[in-house]
Formats: sequence, structure tokens, C-alpha cells
Amino acid sequence: MRDMLGRNELIAVEQALHLMLHSSALKTSDEIDISIEEAYRFILSRDICSPENLPHFAKSTVDGYAVKSSDTFGATEGFPSYLKIIDEVLMGEVPLFRITKGEAAKIATGGMLPEGTDAVVMLEHTQLIDETTIEVVKPVSPGGHVIQIGEDVKKGERILEKGTRLKPQDIGALAGLGITDITVFRKPIVSVIGTGDEIVPPEKPLAPGQVRDINSYTLSGLIQEAGGTALKRGIIKDDYSSIRGIMEECLKDSHMVLITGGSSVGSKDLTENVINDCGKPGVLFHGLSLKPGKPTIGGIVDGVPVFGLPGHPAAIVICYKLIVQPVLYRIAGLCANKNPEIKKNVRARISKNISSSPGREEHIGVTLEEREGEIWAIPLLGKSGLITTLSKADGTAVIPLNKLGVHKGELVEVRFF
Amino acid sequence: MRDMLGRNELIAVEQALHLMLHSSALKTSDEIDISIEEAYRFILSRDICSPENLPHFAKSTVDGYAVKSSDTFGATEGFPSYLKIIDEVLMGEVPLFRITKGEAAKIATGGMLPEGTDAVVMLEHTQLIDETTIEVVKPVSPGGHVIQIGEDVKKGERILEKGTRLKPQDIGALAGLGITDITVFRKPIVSVIGTGDEIVPPEKPLAPGQVRDINSYTLSGLIQEAGGTALKRGIIKDDYSSIRGIMEECLKDSHMVLITGGSSVGSKDLTENVINDCGKPGVLFHGLSLKPGKPTIGGIVDGVPVFGLPGHPAAIVICYKLIVQPVLYRIAGLCANKNPEIKKNVRARISKNISSSPGREEHIGVTLEEREGEIWAIPLLGKSGLITTLSKADGTAVIPLNKLGVHKGELVEVRFF
Repeated sequence: MRDMLGRNELIAVEQALHLMLHSSALKTSDEIDISIEEAYRFILSRDICSPENLPHFAKSTVDGYAVKSSDTFGATEGFPSYLKIIDEVLMGEVPLFRITKGEAAKIATGGMLPEGTDAVVMLEHTQLIDETTIEVVKPVSPGGHVIQIGEDVKKGERILEKGTRLKPQDIGALAGLGITDITVFRKPIVSVIGTGDEIVPPEKPLAPGQVRDINSYTLSGLIQEAGGTALKRGIIKDDYSSIRGIMEECLKDSHMVLITGGSSVGSKDLTENVINDCGKPGVLFHGLSLKPGKPTIGGIVDGVPVFGLPGHPAAIVICYKLIVQPVLYRIAGLCANKNPEIKKNVRARISKNISSSPGREEHIGVTLEEREGEIWAIPLLGKSGLITTLSKADGTAVIPLNKLGVHKGELVEVRFF
Repeated sequence: MRDMLGRNELIAVEQALHLMLHSSALKTSDEIDISIEEAYRFILSRDICSPENLPHFAKSTVDGYAVKSSDTFGATEGFPSYLKIIDEVLMGEVPLFRITKGEAAKIATGGMLPEGTDAVVMLEHTQLIDETTIEVVKPVSPGGHVIQIGEDVKKGERILEKGTRLKPQDIGALAGLGITDITVFRKPIVSVIGTGDEIVPPEKPLAPGQVRDINSYTLSGLIQEAGGTALKRGIIKDDYSSIRGIMEECLKDSHMVLITGGSSVGSKDLTENVINDCGKPGVLFHGLSLKPGKPTIGGIVDGVPVFGLPGHPAAIVICYKLIVQPVLYRIAGLCANKNPEIKKNVRARISKNISSSPGREEHIGVTLEEREGEIWAIPLLGKSGLITTLSKADGTAVIPLNKLGVHKGELVEVRFF
């Protein structure tokens, strides 16, 4: 990973991700049983098949009259069919009567079709003549306004796939099938270690030359948002034995370890050495053709992914989103082919010329504005060390590896945070 | 709200929302104090201003040498400036030395500029001649690679606005400024009442003609996702006194009440009557020019918004997103001008012709696919009562009020769930 001058070779984000996701069997989180009441946003560890037909009886999709469809054939406003109302279907109950030719029964949406009927005429297509007679002014075809047994879900049908993150409507579907307990992946535990001799916790008084810990707080939120459990492991002195000590501690109970900073000269090599010395295969890449985020390190230690992230608060969010989050999703059990990316990116017009160096992918914090039906991305300009730039941003505009920049009005891809 | 034939007049979604958001002073949730550790996704109830300058010392943004910029003016590869390294800036410490003309000090990213310097030369633009001498091959301007005191945040500057939902990077910024405790809006409590004589809880055995409660589970997840606290209040018999009883119970401790179903004939009027009888101003609209979702009811009872939602599981998600969620955001204290809509919609090409009735806004469940760089929306066809349609959907394609349908390949707006 070093060239002849001893410098780290830079690799593209995509390549780094490929190395992480394919190099070794990553340890996926273990399974737990959970009630659907608690399961919102958990990830299914097994396919779920329906234990029954849904609906389990033929039901009406409208308010109206259950009929024999043949009794309505040819009915018009001018020549209506006349039907006798013999009873009413009560919600939640089995109709105990039977409809024969020329008869109808009142039925509400969701009601069970009585024996002898095969369709429902909508209330709007009928007229009440007297208490027991209706005029039908429009024909209904067989099966019209009826959901048949198993039409929504067939018994045994797979309704949710392993790797799905449960949405509110998925939990609703499970409830609808009477499935109240399921098996999901436990939320992965991600340890966050801060390094840097200048970093102090936010509650401590600040001496000149020191800065407060920002990254552990930002990363904890991002990890939570992605469905992990973040453990802040404190701020560690920037030396080999301190970093190695905390790293071995973290490896005992974590599914992933993130080390941020330090910005002291030489500290990047410390992290690299610790990762290599803690287990196999060790460091997989060191240095990305990415701005900001060049000094990122990635490796795997006995199945546990470990990342060394730059100390800049702006860089850390971008590196996390591009490199860490996809790996976190993998160990959390999230199925990659669900393709959440389509939902997370939009294309927008950049509001000013931006130049970029060739050979690196550049990410620029932007806010989004709608102007006459078009979405515009307004770059937030600021030095890369500013912590507030990314707090104000809606996302980052991406200038690809092979471009020298973008012109005002050009379409760029914007990723959300 | 009723026309001459006693039918409810249908109103557009936008108009209904306007009535809800403007008709009366909605009760906004109260304030609580909270640690930033717990504050992720809470909504700020007050502006936050910085108690200090950030950074509170001039710091380097690169690894290199702190210099007097004037010592580097005119430096080139051919005619470099020579500077004497007299010391090194230690991270987190105040340099106790002073730089004079012709001198430099080693400095890392984030290091404090020593007295006498006004810029930092990047390591890449220097060459080490011997242990105490560097060649500088490129000039640096005054202030080059330096973040000045207060350049990121000035003391007293407003850094986060009331009404902001706290993102991970906002929590990071607060930590960076030493703000560890803040005031936020309490999560609004939303009571969810199910009605319908045919509805049973998912854990109960199912008799023919009955269906399990889906909507309370879906709504609870959606409410949680939006930042509320959902309280499932059970399934109530479809009669006036039962609905009125539970409604009065809910109004004691809730910021919002949702009643779903019932689909029995006449139950829609029950809900309307209960809302009108419980307090002022009562029902504001009954009936939307929306498909699915036409029978939706909205009202305000002594400051608390109350909605009657249709019983169809597919309709409920759409009504919730269009009508309930914006009102929930308002009472949660979320600032409307943050415009999260831009982020939540995309435009996609519809994959087949869809017809629609004039005079109503129609929402169709779709999945999204990327085809040669374009996003396509694939309609999920299914009868409106199917519970699984919206579980499979990525979002809904919108056919506006004034259109008769869309043609294959036409751009439609897709909203995400």
C-alpha cells in the first residue's frame, strides 16, 4: 500500500469499499427475538412467510349491496334491475343467511360476502325504492368490489425478506397476519475512540491550544441513525500503547471500531500499526482519493471492521457516510439490493463554478433551494476545518474523480446526510 | 361543509391543511431540559447562541511550518527561501517561544500559531535541508492555512435556530462549543384509537368475518418516525358513547388524537359528531378530493388536533403523510421553513399509463428502479384494500387534482414514506 517513496497509495472510495466488503467474512450481528411493538427499524434476520390466507374470507371493498352479479347484467339508468333487500351483513360477523336470484344484502366496506353472492354493487349505483327494494343502475362483473380469500397474501407466501429494515407499514402488515413476535438482527455495537493530545471532553474547561471533542458526538448520532448502538470510549492519548490498549478492550464487545484523529504528525501511522498488530488481515487501505477525507484508514481485525478517520469534523461526516456506513449496514444485516441510495440522492444544479483537482472525488457542503421548479445546490464555502459548515448543509455535492470542476447550472449529484 | 343534498363537500388536501394549521392556536408541546447525549432528533425550542469564539486561538489547517508570510514572498523551486526551525508547536499547548524574521516552527493541523507568525507553509511546499533548516519553494499569503479566532463561530452568534431538529452534526457542534445541556420541545403524545366492530388485536384468535388491527401499528411507527410518542388506546366499539368516552380520556394527556376506521355504515358521522361535541372549534373538514383517503375528517378540540382516518391500511399511510404529519410537525415545534419536502420527493418516469378521475389528487404506490441513469416509478397494482401494497412500495406517485392521468414515460412526483 506504499509506493517507492514510502507514501501511501491513494485509492478510490469505491475500491476501498470493495476491499472492506469483500476481503474477509465480516462478523454479522447476532439474532434476537423481539415483539413487533419494539421492532420498528430493526432488520429482519429471516424471511417471514404468512401463516394464513389474507383475507381469510371474501370481503367487500366498498359500501353497497352484496348481489349475484348476473342479476345486474344489462342494468342502466333507463332500465334498472330491481332487487329485494333480505338482510344486512354485520361487521365482524358471519352472515347466517343466503342470497338467491333477485335478492341483495346491505354490506359495508370490509364486510363478509354472504353465501350465494359473487359481487358488490356500490351504494352510488343504486337507488332505494322502498324499505326492501333497490334499483341497480349499473352492472357489476363477477368478483366486482370483492377481495377474494388469499388475494392480498396467500398462506405460505413470503411477505418480508431477510435483510429488510422494518418500516411502519411492515409492522402493520405483520400485525395484520397475527405475527406478534419475530427474529431480527441485534443492533451492532460500534465503539468510538477519540485520539489527539489537544482534545478535551465538552464539559471540561478549555485551556488555550485545546479543542473540544466534536467527532465522538457526531459519530454517535450517525451510528444511531443508521441503526447501530454507539459506545463512546473516551479520548485516548496519542501513543501506541494507549491506542492498542483501548483497541483490544473495544474488540472484545464491538462489531465495529472507529478511531478519530489524531492530527499530530505521526499519529496516522500509530493507528495503522495498532490495526496491523491487533489481528488479521489488518489494514486494507490507507489514503483515499477523496476530498475531504484523504487520510482515512480501513482494516479488518479478526472479522471486526476498524476505521481510522481524519480529525476534521467536516471530513468525518463525509468519510462516515461514504465508507463506514455501508460496512455498518452490512454487519447490521441490511440487504444491499434494497438500494436505499436512489432515495438518498437527488440531482441539482450547482449555483456557482467550482474547481476541483483531477484524480480525486470532491464533496462540497451545499444547501438546497427550489427555484422555479428546479432544485439548486448552493455551496457553503468555508475552510475545511470549520465545524459549522456541515451543520448548516443539507448534503454534499459530488464532483467525480475524473472531473476538473463543475460549471454554474451544471447538474450535480447531491447526497444527504 | 355539506352541500344541499347533505353530502360532505370535498376539499383539496392543501386547503384542508391550511384550515388545520391556521384556524386556531394549536397547542405546541412544552419545553424540557436535556443533555446533548440524549438530544439527537429532538427539536430546539430556543435559538442557541455561541458562548465563545471558535476557535478561541489562531490554528493551523495543515501540517507544516508556522512562519512570517513575508519571509516566503517570491519563493520558488529555483529560488527558495531558507528558514531556521527553532522549535515545534505541541498539540493542545500554548507555544512558549516567539518567531522572528527568518525563523519557523514545526506545526501540525490544529496546532496553535506561535507569536510572531501569521501563516503556515504546507509540508509539501518545503524541503528539509538539515535538522534545523528548511527550503520554502512556494510563497504563502498572510493568514494562509490559518483559521483565525472566531472565524468558525463568533461569540454571541446564533448557531442553531429554534425549530431545528437536531442532526448528529448539530450535536457535534454543540459539544464543540461546550454546550452540554439544552432546552428542547417534549415529544408530542399522539393517541391512536381504533374503531370497527370487526377489528381484533393481532394476538387474539380470529373468527370468520373479523380482521386484525393493522392501522394502530402502522400509525405508531409513523408517529415515532416523525418524532412523536404514540399511545395505542385500543379498539373501541363503533358507537357514540364508546368513542366519546375514549376521546375525552385521550384529550386529557394528548397533543393529538387519531381515530381510525370504522368502516361500518354511519360510523363516519359518529366520529364527526364526537369531535363537534367534545370542544371548539370542532370539525374543520370532512371529505378530501384525494384517492385514497376521501373520507378523512379533521378538526381541533380546544387546541388539540383530532383526525378521523379511513380504515383502509393503504389509505391511512397516505392520509397520515399528507394531512396528519404536517400538523404533528407543527405541534412538535418543527420550523416549517426548513422545507424538508425538497428532500423527501423525487421526480421519476412512470412506467405505464395511469388514468385518474378529474377533480381529485390520486396517489399510487410505486417502487423505484434506476434504468440507464433515469429513475422510473413502477406502479404496484392491487385493490385498495390490500395491506401489502404499501409495504412493498418505496413511495407514492402523485397525479395532481387537475390531470386526467399520466402517460408512460411522463415525469411524476414521487413522495417517500
